[in-house]
Amino acid sequence: MPGASGASGVPQFEFDAETRLAGDGPAFTAQITDRWSGMVGVNGGFMLALCTRALGQVLPFPDPVVVSAFFLRPGLPGTAHLSTEVIRTGKTTAFGQASLWRDGKEVVRATAAFTDLSKAAARAERGPTFTGAAAPSLPPPDECFAMPSAALAGVTLTDRLDYRAGAAPGWLTGQPSGDPTAEFWMRFSDGREPDLMSLPLLVDAAAPVVLEVGALSTTVQLTVHMRAHPAPGWLACRALTRHVAAGYHEEDFEIWDSAGVLVAQSRQLALVLG
Amino acid sequence: MPGASGASGVPQFEFDAETRLAGDGPAFTAQITDRWSGMVGVNGGFMLALCTRALGQVLPFPDPVVVSAFFLRPGLPGTAHLSTEVIRTGKTTAFGQASLWRDGKEVVRATAAFTDLSKAAARAERGPTFTGAAAPSLPPPDECFAMPSAALAGVTLTDRLDYRAGAAPGWLTGQPSGDPTAEFWMRFSDGREPDLMSLPLLVDAAAPVVLEVGALSTTVQLTVHMRAHPAPGWLACRALTRHVAAGYHEEDFEIWDSAGVLVAQSRQLALVLG
Repeated sequence: MPGASGASGVPQFEFDAETRLAGDGPAFTAQITDRWSGMVGVNGGFMLALCTRALGQVLPFPDPVVVSAFFLRPGLPGTAHLSTEVIRTGKTTAFGQASLWRDGKEVVRATAAFTDLSKAAARAERGPTFTGAAAPSLPPPDECFAMPSAALAGVTLTDRLDYRAGAAPGWLTGQPSGDPTAEFWMRFSDGREPDLMSLPLLVDAAAPVVLEVGALSTTVQLTVHMRAHPAPGWLACRALTRHVAAGYHEEDFEIWDSAGVLVAQSRQLALVLG
Repeated sequence: MPGASGASGVPQFEFDAETRLAGDGPAFTAQITDRWSGMVGVNGGFMLALCTRALGQVLPFPDPVVVSAFFLRPGLPGTAHLSTEVIRTGKTTAFGQASLWRDGKEVVRATAAFTDLSKAAARAERGPTFTGAAAPSLPPPDECFAMPSAALAGVTLTDRLDYRAGAAPGWLTGQPSGDPTAEFWMRFSDGREPDLMSLPLLVDAAAPVVLEVGALSTTVQLTVHMRAHPAPGWLACRALTRHVAAGYHEEDFEIWDSAGVLVAQSRQLALVLG
């Protein structure tokens, strides 16, 4: 169960333990370990998850439905300060802003809307629905290629997660495919089940698909839509870049839960590193 | 030429005249007319264009590359106040935030990154490029169906723009197609050429494609990536919704210029109206 604590009161799963916030708000502190690092400092999705968790403490609705973050400078492990602001509380939606600070410098600025997704779904019960896309079609996780730990030098985040794909990605075997797309399974290595609060991390937790065209990049901005509470189990993911041009690329990311429901859609803009 | 002024000093095109800001910063005022209204108050993209223009006045780089806005309440015509904040100025990128206020209430909160897109492209000249999608394939504008003015009651924004599609959309003829996608040409009716500053308006300026599944909605959040300076001429647009579920839907929007270059990619999250 997400967030479940052991007898000692310490969360039993590492994501919950390591996104714990001290303070009663509107300001908080977090201790960022070196276990969530991406290719350039602390993974952006992890810092966005911290901001989302801080906003969950100050906003009157339980569920993030959209979060948007700008990454202002690389984040480093250590003590981070989080400031929050309630922008507006309406009848069904509340808006807030959170910043993550390191040594007095702002690293991430995030804005979010929170709601009660179950109530929103109940209100929409008789309204129109449409699904124009399907979950990735993947072999069962047990029959898949398991991504090795430490596949990317310096990246520790990937040790926190299990990834399974139909085949090893081209970039991993030294033969980039030229096609910046990927479909794969993902879950927390320690058995923690996915929830809304972990989705901002998970959409940014896989190797960037632009590795297949020989590009390295750093995220400038990331927007995540959280469309439904994820069911327990493996998550089916799809990552896709269509335009690497003039020094920037987008990456789209979808997460589908074990019940076949789209639970997250994200897009980021990244700066190609020279 | 975008922004060109007549002999009187008054901008000759209506978008430029009606997004004029008074003030030297960091605060500005704008006079919003009733000529840019969407289905629920002033069009969100127009208000985002105002915020983007305000940020362009206070940030040291000329080109917005990504803007993200949350729509907190409906906007009405009249005097709007804009507040701006320079978040961070780096060597190649500057970040800022702008809010649009009406009668002391915050209506839009926007965050943006600005850069010099030509310099970014020059730095990336020898780097990887990839294009995994093509511009919409449309008949020449003169052979297309021209969307009539006032197709949607109360919507005035569409009078500012010309739209041309291969055929009349289903929702317009009372026979929604069930397929929430559209491809069409778009340009300003008064001959103003597209530029980066107008893209936040243009990605939100067409009828929502969820009309094809019988849904009405209001935008919660909109993120726009501006990928290149648009060439003069008609813009080829593609709008696409894949998931209408549990009271929300996304809409993706692409704008390709007359040279066949992708110039804008946007995604919005919208709340389905009951």
